[in-house]
Amino acid sequence: MAPKTDIEIARAARKLPIQEIGARLGIGAEDLVPYGHDKAKVSQRFIDSVQGRPNGRLILVTAINPTPAGEGKTTTTVGLGDGLARIGKNAAICIREASLGPNFGMKGGAAGGGHAQVVPMEDMNLHFTGDFHAITSAHNLLAAMIDNHIYWGNALDIDQRRVVWRRVMDMNDRALRDVVTSLGGVANGFPAQAGFDITVASEVMAILCLATSLTDLERRLGDMIVAYRRDRTPVYARDLKAHGAMTVLLKDALQPNLVQTLENTPAFVHGGPFANIAHGCNSVTATTTALKLADYVVTEAGFGADLGAEKFMNIKCRKAGLAPDAVVLVATVRALKANGGIPKEDLGAENVEALRTGCANLGRHIANLKAFGVPVVVAVNHFVTDTEAEVEAIRAYAADQGAEAILCRHWAQGSAGIEDLARRVADLADSGASAFTPLYPDEMPLFEKIETIARRIYHAGEVTADKAVRDQLAAWEAQGYGHLPVCMAKTQYSFSTDPALRGAPSGHVVPVREVRLSAGAGFVVAICGQIMTMPGLPRVPSAESIRLNAAGLVEGLF
Amino acid sequence: MAPKTDIEIARAARKLPIQEIGARLGIGAEDLVPYGHDKAKVSQRFIDSVQGRPNGRLILVTAINPTPAGEGKTTTTVGLGDGLARIGKNAAICIREASLGPNFGMKGGAAGGGHAQVVPMEDMNLHFTGDFHAITSAHNLLAAMIDNHIYWGNALDIDQRRVVWRRVMDMNDRALRDVVTSLGGVANGFPAQAGFDITVASEVMAILCLATSLTDLERRLGDMIVAYRRDRTPVYARDLKAHGAMTVLLKDALQPNLVQTLENTPAFVHGGPFANIAHGCNSVTATTTALKLADYVVTEAGFGADLGAEKFMNIKCRKAGLAPDAVVLVATVRALKANGGIPKEDLGAENVEALRTGCANLGRHIANLKAFGVPVVVAVNHFVTDTEAEVEAIRAYAADQGAEAILCRHWAQGSAGIEDLARRVADLADSGASAFTPLYPDEMPLFEKIETIARRIYHAGEVTADKAVRDQLAAWEAQGYGHLPVCMAKTQYSFSTDPALRGAPSGHVVPVREVRLSAGAGFVVAICGQIMTMPGLPRVPSAESIRLNAAGLVEGLF
Repeated sequence: MAPKTDIEIARAARKLPIQEIGARLGIGAEDLVPYGHDKAKVSQRFIDSVQGRPNGRLILVTAINPTPAGEGKTTTTVGLGDGLARIGKNAAICIREASLGPNFGMKGGAAGGGHAQVVPMEDMNLHFTGDFHAITSAHNLLAAMIDNHIYWGNALDIDQRRVVWRRVMDMNDRALRDVVTSLGGVANGFPAQAGFDITVASEVMAILCLATSLTDLERRLGDMIVAYRRDRTPVYARDLKAHGAMTVLLKDALQPNLVQTLENTPAFVHGGPFANIAHGCNSVTATTTALKLADYVVTEAGFGADLGAEKFMNIKCRKAGLAPDAVVLVATVRALKANGGIPKEDLGAENVEALRTGCANLGRHIANLKAFGVPVVVAVNHFVTDTEAEVEAIRAYAADQGAEAILCRHWAQGSAGIEDLARRVADLADSGASAFTPLYPDEMPLFEKIETIARRIYHAGEVTADKAVRDQLAAWEAQGYGHLPVCMAKTQYSFSTDPALRGAPSGHVVPVREVRLSAGAGFVVAICGQIMTMPGLPRVPSAESIRLNAAGLVEGLF
Repeated sequence: MAPKTDIEIARAARKLPIQEIGARLGIGAEDLVPYGHDKAKVSQRFIDSVQGRPNGRLILVTAINPTPAGEGKTTTTVGLGDGLARIGKNAAICIREASLGPNFGMKGGAAGGGHAQVVPMEDMNLHFTGDFHAITSAHNLLAAMIDNHIYWGNALDIDQRRVVWRRVMDMNDRALRDVVTSLGGVANGFPAQAGFDITVASEVMAILCLATSLTDLERRLGDMIVAYRRDRTPVYARDLKAHGAMTVLLKDALQPNLVQTLENTPAFVHGGPFANIAHGCNSVTATTTALKLADYVVTEAGFGADLGAEKFMNIKCRKAGLAPDAVVLVATVRALKANGGIPKEDLGAENVEALRTGCANLGRHIANLKAFGVPVVVAVNHFVTDTEAEVEAIRAYAADQGAEAILCRHWAQGSAGIEDLARRVADLADSGASAFTPLYPDEMPLFEKIETIARRIYHAGEVTADKAVRDQLAAWEAQGYGHLPVCMAKTQYSFSTDPALRGAPSGHVVPVREVRLSAGAGFVVAICGQIMTMPGLPRVPSAESIRLNAAGLVEGLF
């Protein structure tokens, strides 16, 4: 018999009514805003009511640099949540929402895998609770108001060539990357170069994920820079009086979504900012709410630890006043062999030597994470082709770096396969060993912040930037934005800016090609390479095979 | 004390949990898919399970030609539903969903008014249950797949100049009416003229509102024409294999939404196609489901009876096998005076003579509706400035035309003010007097169908059309589309195509400027005048004053 697919396992799940999941966290049915029988938002009223409670332990799951072999970060996040519940802990997980558009390009988009998944999978990969649609609406309302303002006389004196606010759509549509708008004559406005990004790239998404309240949300939306005048002074969303209406459009979306794992562990699935031009973490409201309701909250960050964990620490934790109590670094035998130079088709064969070479990547991440003052444990996400010698090699290597590596079989076994990790993580988180500190202080100049990340996390030898980039950073510092953290946008496949450079390269050059100010989200983006903010569909999009079958079930989405 | 505003009345409503509203219709909680505590979708499973039941009575509410004075068609639909419930009938109402975008232009968008409203008003004017977002996604997925197909080699040989599928957004954004896409070089495709309509103008919206099942929905989506080849042969959505994925995106949206009136009468609020380029009625699934669950179903159609009721009869009823048992024609003293030539600022003063002149508009609609074989009653929607002499003049005029006119005070009094109408409508609907027949047979040639509507409903003297238009109609007939009904797109303010021509003009010319084929929805659109499918924002958009107040309530939306 063939092993069950993710979707078969998910459909066989014994889901509990969402009210029972809420009850496990002490949320009454009246404070759950249901979306169907298996999804709910937690009411703002309830969130406000628990603010005085102490926080549970915060556990970050991150990973080595991603490889085509797959690491299973989300799977491990889900499995660890289930594992903690299995050993009797009151646990919850916090992960990001999936973007709808890309699911119609490549097969999507599951939340976890095997016996460590969040359900309902179909809904989470389609409209879910409508959060991303709300972000799209709020974003595009602002865009319409900008052009409308210019149309009716441009009292704010916007330089139409310097409108930096693009439009968004939750769709892979390369035709919209570069467009000219307002053609067709007087009634349609002034023609302008414009374009669309995918919704997850919107600054509104980043703001939704960093806002701590509706008031904070509205303030941040107002702070967004949408254009510049001829004299280069910024025009803000609040100058267009757009932030109030945008907040109204986002008021439901700000409430975190509650669903469940296959083993009925509460799962907050909320927000999904890009992990390159934004910080790549689930929402602050979800994480802080979960910490009030559960004793252990397991969350994850986008990409590998060099990008995801760094931003989690320096942006999300700093901004939200959070401090992780333990970090789980996910690795697989296959991915470490890939880091050791083995091509994908040969990853199934035992190769301890290549594995040891690839472990340099693991070691670098362990050291980087320890530099944040947090205790680290390595989760070896088991794959069927792994050999005992390979697993043992990772254990030995990690021990040398001062971290325990624990084999986990949650993909195949669910929580039963991850008890060891769960116990170790709970002990670490309870130990008080964490002395979290961000990598750099707020007052450090912006370019120095970039250099600090590049040197200490990427082990780069040099950071280069044009005079224009340095001048721009200086101008923002003069305007009062110097205290912001920086958000690095670079390839996730390497510590360097060359995706082919695996392992643990050192001494490379990090070129900062462009900088952008997300004044509402509250960070400066440093772009080190090509960043695609509107994907395209492949030659044969998965949409062609997505359909409802005779039983009314979705086929082709997974 | 100032009279309460609509929003104050709505907020003071004693809403019941949506499960209690469902129970009144015999829908169990397990068959309601909740969206919050006061909104739900009715599950497809439940809808399938009631197909064998007999239908209740179907009552259409329509109106004289709209004027700036306001007629209160939706208010009367809601009030009549409440009135029927008050006299002990098992009643439900069916109305359309509101479009989000326009609410940020002009103050929106209430569902009814005074003491005859549907709640929750804020949600209904914002994202509601996400149906329109789903339509936007499905529509734009198809657009992306068309450009993607051309990008990857254009195996279907699409003539890129003849792509007729535009994109949509639920936003008033004039800058998107005419755009050029795919700029920026090789990786972004082939530059093309394109544009956006507002979501309610999408053929997908019309299809969602006419589809009788998920299977029918998928078939219709596949039937949509998206482009033509150089040889003018059509390219269908099914040629791009887009219809399956679009159906998946729309599977929840097809399920009708259940909410309630201020007096807790069940209200289905589902679908909202344009009333000019589409048929302007709520969904067939909502209406047919309501007819299985309630003894009396009150619904409405867009604009005045010349457009709305005509399309309700000739498109919706014909397609769905429905037959109205009674029609309520809404008029107001003020609107009839406006039809009699009185400017808006003078409508508050008694003027029986002008009223009698304006009654010609009422009389024409009564005669037109009777021509469909349905019994008609006139609802005089009371306004505070109406005098007894004016109301009496309408009564006398209507009686001359063979219709009873009944004064209704539901706006001020709720169901207590509309008991008389409710009793009369119930009697009429029960009387078996209805002998509904559409205006023209399927097999009539397309241009003759247009002429039939123009002559018999509009009392036009002539219909004109270029050779190109006539040739196009002939070509569609040759392709097998001759059996479709026609959907007239003309001004709603007059029986003629001149919005200033009030009353009951005769002998005018109706110029058909353009025809469009909605092959999936199943009608041919005849455009008689300028039709705007993407609105713009006004100089001071209402968005500027929309915000959350300190109590967390939405201000400025109504």
